[in-house]
Amino acid sequence: MSCPVLDFYFEFASTYSYPAVMRIGSLAQAAGVALRWRPFLLGPLFKAQGWDTSPFNLYPAKGRYMWRDVERICTRLALPFRRPDPFPQWTLLPARVAYVGLEEGWGENFCRAVYAAEFGEGRPVGEEAVVREVLQGLGVAPEAALARARSAEIKARLRAATEEAERAGVFGAPSFVAADGELFWGQDRMAEALAWAVRLRAAGA
Amino acid sequence: MSCPVLDFYFEFASTYSYPAVMRIGSLAQAAGVALRWRPFLLGPLFKAQGWDTSPFNLYPAKGRYMWRDVERICTRLALPFRRPDPFPQWTLLPARVAYVGLEEGWGENFCRAVYAAEFGEGRPVGEEAVVREVLQGLGVAPEAALARARSAEIKARLRAATEEAERAGVFGAPSFVAADGELFWGQDRMAEALAWAVRLRAAGA
Repeated sequence: MSCPVLDFYFEFASTYSYPAVMRIGSLAQAAGVALRWRPFLLGPLFKAQGWDTSPFNLYPAKGRYMWRDVERICTRLALPFRRPDPFPQWTLLPARVAYVGLEEGWGENFCRAVYAAEFGEGRPVGEEAVVREVLQGLGVAPEAALARARSAEIKARLRAATEEAERAGVFGAPSFVAADGELFWGQDRMAEALAWAVRLRAAGA
Repeated sequence: MSCPVLDFYFEFASTYSYPAVMRIGSLAQAAGVALRWRPFLLGPLFKAQGWDTSPFNLYPAKGRYMWRDVERICTRLALPFRRPDPFPQWTLLPARVAYVGLEEGWGENFCRAVYAAEFGEGRPVGEEAVVREVLQGLGVAPEAALARARSAEIKARLRAATEEAERAGVFGAPSFVAADGELFWGQDRMAEALAWAVRLRAAGA
């Protein structure tokens, strides 16, 4: 197995993370890039900038544009799209459960299933009942996964990812950080980030 | 001559407007899209959101990323890039002069020359001496152009563009507004905006 050459930072509440999460697995595989999936929380980063909610709520013109833009992107990619209510969703629980799954081998499927429920069907994915359903749909026993999601170890992992994202200069989601620290922001920079990682690995090989 | 089918809103202080202004003319021509060049002022729109300077200054992580991202874009497009100091530049005068030029046939060349001076060489394009030099470089007599730039008619034109941008939902630059009101934001949406305009014209023909 090759070394991870690209950190993929995403936040379960983030609209633009939806098309990124749904597509990056196959794109990275095709490019031969080893990806590190790192769900993180935007809340603490936003709070540090003085924001108590999404900038898309704070700045209405920007918010209106975002909803239309995401709709266009989803149409182009043939992804179903439905706006969750409220926005943003409370995503602490799915983010923690994702770290359990990423260690146990079902994490990437879980992430895709959560985004599909949230932005494909508009479901409240922060609620335990919905997370439970998603897990069951993947054939994962919810009790053990939820118990482990609340362990100190998993909580620390999510906190560390959020702190490392901030140190890497991340300020929005999705973001991509290459092994040399190069940062890319936005689902529309995914191809560029993967290409950077490929060049970097070639240069270091 | 075909009808204008795409409004191109840009602000002389905006970094991401630089690669857009340098490339959109030939791209629009190749796509057969009639473009309406509409320099506008972001200042009043930012002020309405409670900002007294560029969000890239207000939010340091976002600002650091922007400078690196614009540098990467310029490298890829083989455009020289030099950060102007201070940022943002005071761009009222070049915006007014641009409207004179857009009526007199030298406006698009003027816009490209201003951006090349500002972001290719880091020059203070808000200063009258620099605007004068740019005009002379284009073979335009500065006195008449500057006098007309300060006329009530031209001032009103810039004000109207800024107000129409805001009504169209514009909140940043560059932005593109199609004849049906569809809005695209960012130089990385330029191809998408042109394609939209082409489809729209085809549908209306």
